[in-house]
Amino acid sequence: MQDGKSGDKTRKPIERQNIRLTVAFEGTAYHGWQIQSDSATLQGVLSEAIRKITGEQVKLTGSGRTDAGTHARGLVANFSTGSAMAPARLARGLNAVLPHDIRVLSAKRTHPGFHARKDASSKIYRYQIYLGPVLPPHLRREYLHYPYRVDVSRMQAAARLFSGEHDFASFAKTNADRTNTVRRIFRCDLKKKGHILHLTVEGNGFLHHMVRNMAGTLLEVGKGSMSLEAFKNLFKQKDRRLAGFTAPAHGLVLLKVRY
Amino acid sequence: MQDGKSGDKTRKPIERQNIRLTVAFEGTAYHGWQIQSDSATLQGVLSEAIRKITGEQVKLTGSGRTDAGTHARGLVANFSTGSAMAPARLARGLNAVLPHDIRVLSAKRTHPGFHARKDASSKIYRYQIYLGPVLPPHLRREYLHYPYRVDVSRMQAAARLFSGEHDFASFAKTNADRTNTVRRIFRCDLKKKGHILHLTVEGNGFLHHMVRNMAGTLLEVGKGSMSLEAFKNLFKQKDRRLAGFTAPAHGLVLLKVRY
Repeated sequence: MQDGKSGDKTRKPIERQNIRLTVAFEGTAYHGWQIQSDSATLQGVLSEAIRKITGEQVKLTGSGRTDAGTHARGLVANFSTGSAMAPARLARGLNAVLPHDIRVLSAKRTHPGFHARKDASSKIYRYQIYLGPVLPPHLRREYLHYPYRVDVSRMQAAARLFSGEHDFASFAKTNADRTNTVRRIFRCDLKKKGHILHLTVEGNGFLHHMVRNMAGTLLEVGKGSMSLEAFKNLFKQKDRRLAGFTAPAHGLVLLKVRY
Repeated sequence: MQDGKSGDKTRKPIERQNIRLTVAFEGTAYHGWQIQSDSATLQGVLSEAIRKITGEQVKLTGSGRTDAGTHARGLVANFSTGSAMAPARLARGLNAVLPHDIRVLSAKRTHPGFHARKDASSKIYRYQIYLGPVLPPHLRREYLHYPYRVDVSRMQAAARLFSGEHDFASFAKTNADRTNTVRRIFRCDLKKKGHILHLTVEGNGFLHHMVRNMAGTLLEVGKGSMSLEAFKNLFKQKDRRLAGFTAPAHGLVLLKVRY
């Protein structure tokens, strides 16, 4: 590359790095991923931390939007930078300036074409529920407290029906301007240990509020306010009003994104 | 019981209830159990909540003092009250006025002689350590971050030596005015799962800072800065300066008190 004004000297091309971050956060204090002018968001706070460390205003791509108040153990994001800083040093620098509820678990150099959202092959979410009469304080930020009698084996039978390719229109946020509401669920299981109930779902993609609506609907099946038969019909009915309530954001954790 | 001023009527004796509470708390915001005039403490905040619900200023007895910043899943406390309120209603009332980092898990009527501290036969503590390079945000309040290479099987061998009756003078806070430093440990085990290390100790009593000093000393054994031989000698040396560091308060959780 040559630049007339710099005279005869040949400049080395600027080598850009595409950095892939794995990020964990407790989302209680954030209005979700996407940058907003008036609220703290993950994308906003992370971009600002990157600016402090590299001096650059980068475009940070996340593996997907996340709802306000949800959490992550391993969200993936990427950005292109002209900084030559070693990724491990960058990660340490970011953790030094980030608030304690956001941590960069790793930073790695990846190929220039890597795109955190478009290249994701699946995501794993967990919805966390506490069934006991009183929610222990250390679980309060990341568990839905649901102190009602539920039939867990009925819920498990329903959860298994989520596996496979289905039209999830009944489980998508209403007013969402999606045309294609078909998604493939690779795995959906519900495990109980003491008072704790974990719904773990892996899929190739998720509609807005989909996991929270799946969790809320399963709880209605467990409580007996929805029959298994009515549950089965939801896939073909494609009507959000017929499914269960939207379980609150704070019980949802993005565990992992696969590529 | 008769009272001259009330005339002829025979009053029923005031029946007092001895209430046993099981309490869980995230201790981050508190200066330990014992009431202090100028800082928020568990005993202070709980006593004030009881006053709001029963109208009485009670003497609240805890199963033991706890260090500032430590946590509990099941601390036991008791108090005597003239209120006839049903214990379950009392528990709901307390949880309605307590801050969210303190929860009354249960309230039960117990026999008049029950004393939460004197009657305890054993306590179970867990010290929680995270060994990975970056501490995930959701563990930050209750885990010591120790991102060093440790030999866990050496630590486990040392942990087993804590079992039985020993003089724990080397593991007691210096300047403590204890004369008898002999305690019986019923069980002491160290378990690793992924990056998480849990030291679980059950004993008939604990000296000030004892579990935290046990955890710190085991980490020094694991890191190699203390030999197993040196570790074994600590029981007869009875010298705090020879044991390991005091692991920080925020990794310590009181799991249960047995009676």
